[in-house]
Amino acid sequence: MADVEKYFDLVNQDQQAFIETLREVVAIPSVSGDAARRPDVVRMGEWLQARWEALGATCKRVDPGKQNLHGEILDLPPVILGQYGNDPNKKTVLVYGHYDVQPALIEDGWETDPFVLVEKEDGRLVGRGSTDDKGPVLGWLLCAETHKKAGIEMPVNLKFCFEGMEESGSEGLDEIIVEEADKWFKGTDVVCISDNYWLGKNKPCLTHGLRGVSYFHLQVEGPGADLHSGVFGGTVHEPMTDLVHLLSKLVDVNGKIQVPGIYDQVMPITDEEEETYNNLEFSHTALASDLKNDVLIHAEERDTLKHRWRFPTLSIHGVEGAFYASGDKTVIPAKVRGKFSLRTVPNMEPAKVAELVTKYLNDEFAKLGSKNKMQVIETHGGRWWYSSPKHPNFVAGAKATEKVYGVKPDLTREGGSIPVTLTFEENLNVNVLLLPMGASDDGAHSINEKIDKRNYIEGIKLLGAYLHEVANTDLSA
Amino acid sequence: MADVEKYFDLVNQDQQAFIETLREVVAIPSVSGDAARRPDVVRMGEWLQARWEALGATCKRVDPGKQNLHGEILDLPPVILGQYGNDPNKKTVLVYGHYDVQPALIEDGWETDPFVLVEKEDGRLVGRGSTDDKGPVLGWLLCAETHKKAGIEMPVNLKFCFEGMEESGSEGLDEIIVEEADKWFKGTDVVCISDNYWLGKNKPCLTHGLRGVSYFHLQVEGPGADLHSGVFGGTVHEPMTDLVHLLSKLVDVNGKIQVPGIYDQVMPITDEEEETYNNLEFSHTALASDLKNDVLIHAEERDTLKHRWRFPTLSIHGVEGAFYASGDKTVIPAKVRGKFSLRTVPNMEPAKVAELVTKYLNDEFAKLGSKNKMQVIETHGGRWWYSSPKHPNFVAGAKATEKVYGVKPDLTREGGSIPVTLTFEENLNVNVLLLPMGASDDGAHSINEKIDKRNYIEGIKLLGAYLHEVANTDLSA
Repeated sequence: MADVEKYFDLVNQDQQAFIETLREVVAIPSVSGDAARRPDVVRMGEWLQARWEALGATCKRVDPGKQNLHGEILDLPPVILGQYGNDPNKKTVLVYGHYDVQPALIEDGWETDPFVLVEKEDGRLVGRGSTDDKGPVLGWLLCAETHKKAGIEMPVNLKFCFEGMEESGSEGLDEIIVEEADKWFKGTDVVCISDNYWLGKNKPCLTHGLRGVSYFHLQVEGPGADLHSGVFGGTVHEPMTDLVHLLSKLVDVNGKIQVPGIYDQVMPITDEEEETYNNLEFSHTALASDLKNDVLIHAEERDTLKHRWRFPTLSIHGVEGAFYASGDKTVIPAKVRGKFSLRTVPNMEPAKVAELVTKYLNDEFAKLGSKNKMQVIETHGGRWWYSSPKHPNFVAGAKATEKVYGVKPDLTREGGSIPVTLTFEENLNVNVLLLPMGASDDGAHSINEKIDKRNYIEGIKLLGAYLHEVANTDLSA
Repeated sequence: MADVEKYFDLVNQDQQAFIETLREVVAIPSVSGDAARRPDVVRMGEWLQARWEALGATCKRVDPGKQNLHGEILDLPPVILGQYGNDPNKKTVLVYGHYDVQPALIEDGWETDPFVLVEKEDGRLVGRGSTDDKGPVLGWLLCAETHKKAGIEMPVNLKFCFEGMEESGSEGLDEIIVEEADKWFKGTDVVCISDNYWLGKNKPCLTHGLRGVSYFHLQVEGPGADLHSGVFGGTVHEPMTDLVHLLSKLVDVNGKIQVPGIYDQVMPITDEEEETYNNLEFSHTALASDLKNDVLIHAEERDTLKHRWRFPTLSIHGVEGAFYASGDKTVIPAKVRGKFSLRTVPNMEPAKVAELVTKYLNDEFAKLGSKNKMQVIETHGGRWWYSSPKHPNFVAGAKATEKVYGVKPDLTREGGSIPVTLTFEENLNVNVLLLPMGASDDGAHSINEKIDKRNYIEGIKLLGAYLHEVANTDLSA
């Protein structure tokens, strides 16, 4: 029996133990956004480090420094760097994951305690972090442990980078990656990240593109203080009036961005790309049902995916400084900030996006003839990421998927951003594969987060199979 | 010496005692909006009742019932009804005031403890409630006490109605006024309310008009839950996009309402009215300076006043349901409510305003072609109030003002609403005079609220002089 088949067999045998391990880590409420939970986040990092070290890995704990969380000064949780195997004849795969989780309270609407893993009859393993990202992070660990237990040699050298701040902006991580690029991460051949989701509920995928995001604050400032609308309504230029006029010029109700020049930078769709939309596991029926109301703009599935993956979009998120509570208040807010962001795609440059947006809003504001002051502030400009799915790293991922699931994976892109992807690619100069374990309905940031038992167990196989495929792949091809 | 001159003399003598009384009541932090202060509000009402009863007034404490304040069930503070004098040969004047105050914390930026009255060298008496409305409420009491002390007969029968919830929506008051209209308030000839402000800082005024207010929520509802803009941006109809498009159609940046038909109901300006704008104490220079930035729409003072007093205006107050905090969040809010209100003037009818606004927004929403759901909700429709300044009650107020200040008062209207004015007028069928004590810069709802010593002392004289003038006026003229 080939090594990978022996590995699969042992995974099948140890399923229940793997679920128990997931139960053990879900029980550590490592919520990075909650100051009171910070010791649990640290404890979770230490749990991982101890378990890898017990297996024989060399670990390095890096403390990124201090954080100001709503005025409280906290130690950032450690980034756990590791090295498992150091054979110069083997390829080296770096894997990334995060051991912190989103906040969760039973009062939010959870069916059961979010920090107690519950195995449902329908196969769901429900618990905070089950799919995002404790399941996948355990996947790499259980893969290595199972190899050792079965007496199978690891096919590659494994490096890992597990952080505890992903759900809170990955504070401090980029600096560590930059710093360690030629040190701890030296010798990395490829990177694999398992921290996103299938396009649907049944068919696995590889992900080779992410959108960037440029975030803007559109500030309009008028009187020195909030005013009473009874006294001042109709006599002063009201910042909110100016703001809604400007926001209404950004995008039409069908999502078409009105900023001149924005679409000029977008890469055209080739026939080859068009074909990739033919056999994806994606249906509007399921999507509209998830949305509860059918508010879909596009008639065709492929158009929805194109607007998610490869066209820029603009969303208006809210207004800071205005009245936002329930009830009635007759205030004229003195200074308001409209928040909006653009999702960007190849080959848009954040600097050019900011320039176009700013110029357009300045022009439109000048047309209004208001005496208020207007300012466009770009608070964030993160680039998109795009990788060819023909790269040998992806070919290895595809072969592993076929071996485990018996189907060719969908090749997907995502509408959101996973900034660390780009950080690894740019600083290590190696290919990055996104190899998801969970399904589209896992509810990563929602109540009743789950990973299906199938995805968890087959996912553990998948990560191992991928390492075996990488070992047998010519990465320079 | 005429009675009123004797009264003025004694007021001059007792100035310091009057300031001490103001100090005593400012020290009772009767903040109606703060559950923890509710006992202080009640204590303040009881203080007033006890002092009037000590003078010989007959009082009736009416408890309006329960209130739900942010989930806490509280007893509403009492409405203190009173009768001082019951001579069938005298006219009966009903006065209204409120003994509760706005919240105030030194951390808000007060120079000194807001609940400790401080007499400044420039004549300001600084303290929460000094001008709104404890100064004026004391004015009536001190007037009656001084008459007694001086051995001067009160020229009229006085009825009073002092409430403790004015700063929190006057909960329960209207029902009491309706209930008592033919009982406790029976026999009232005129009403006088001292709870507003001069147009400027130096010249007294009588106020004979208030605008109404119609408040609307414009709700747009799309997906069943908030969405991630990375995943769903550009593929669903976003409620915020629809909302800013609709809000931008309501009013232009110069305050011109875009709802068809709104201006049709507005009473035209006669030559006679136009003349009343000639000699008012009002300057754009002072106004722009108060505003810190000159964001005034109109070039002429009279146009600013017309848009404050006698034209309808529309202000956008904010958005409920969207992202409102500082920082960045890439949410697509699922359900948002834009809040806006129209200030209404003679002869606009709230029902007609709601009809026009709703029809217009429905028409504009239909044009957008969005699959979201839109709804216009009128949450409040309060009428404007207008009284002829030629009514004998106003003539009495004008004569009293001339006697105290040596100038003819400005005849003003206000842009805001004092709903109790209309409640008294409609239920008692008598004329209501608004006779302010404080000046435009008193900062009623702001930090460092003050009443100038001049306004307080001369104001006590003014209220007494007004009662004497009413006694000598033919109210049927």
